[in-house]
Amino acid sequence: MTRFEPAVLALADALRARGWRLACAESCTGGLLAAACTAVAGSSDWFERGVVSYSNDAKTTLLGVPAATIDAHGAVSEEVARAMAEGLLARAPVELTLAVTGIAGPGGAVPGKPVGTVWIAWAVAGRTEARLLQLDGDRAAVREATVDAALVALVAAARA
Amino acid sequence: MTRFEPAVLALADALRARGWRLACAESCTGGLLAAACTAVAGSSDWFERGVVSYSNDAKTTLLGVPAATIDAHGAVSEEVARAMAEGLLARAPVELTLAVTGIAGPGGAVPGKPVGTVWIAWAVAGRTEARLLQLDGDRAAVREATVDAALVALVAAARA
Repeated sequence: MTRFEPAVLALADALRARGWRLACAESCTGGLLAAACTAVAGSSDWFERGVVSYSNDAKTTLLGVPAATIDAHGAVSEEVARAMAEGLLARAPVELTLAVTGIAGPGGAVPGKPVGTVWIAWAVAGRTEARLLQLDGDRAAVREATVDAALVALVAAARA
Repeated sequence: MTRFEPAVLALADALRARGWRLACAESCTGGLLAAACTAVAGSSDWFERGVVSYSNDAKTTLLGVPAATIDAHGAVSEEVARAMAEGLLARAPVELTLAVTGIAGPGGAVPGKPVGTVWIAWAVAGRTEARLLQLDGDRAAVREATVDAALVALVAAARA
């Protein structure tokens, strides 16, 4: 089992209770959230799709994030995280989406956005929420802590 | 580091030597291949996007796999693996794609396709290749062995 399994099982229960399906869009976690979800048997009941939108082109073409939003705020921003979550919700046959964009390091830091700066956003019909994470540690630690935080947010959203 | 890091570093070298970018489409590995690739610093130089096409709808809408191909051969088939790899190559600004579709278990086996049946396919312009894997072990073991095999195939394709 992965370190994420207890949280994923809680998420599976919460989604099944509502009959919801999930899709996720990942930049800095690069598929780790999807891999954590699908590590659990039976996840095809509730995990519908994932998009690893590593390039800006992928964010635009697969999720509909406006290039102007990326240009204005940077790929690692609340605005882009929200647009990723909302764009995926509009495109996938799901009730809940979560998006991640951040700087896992060791490179990629820019003024005001050090390594470990991560935005997550999650969307259901009519409501999108976002949270800024400021994480310590190396690339693996930042990615894993982001998945932890994403799963906490998803469980809360599915139970709300 | 993950168990995949040595193979991913070899892949990164081979892709950089040709100036190629990679995209992947995953069903049973559920993002594990993308996560392995992006665990390595600097992967944004060559990893362009990933699609976790867990549902048949995702295979059709994100990758262009004809629903008739899925109906005729099943989602776990050489035909679908090839269509996933070719569909992604047609849609993403990359030179190399790899697709995975299989049965990680414990459920999902059908007559003639036991747990551990996995097709991988990889595509470059004008050429697609596919390989059948018949893997032992539990869900985690099948997923990890599939990523191992995918990385071997990708390194060979990038060096060919």
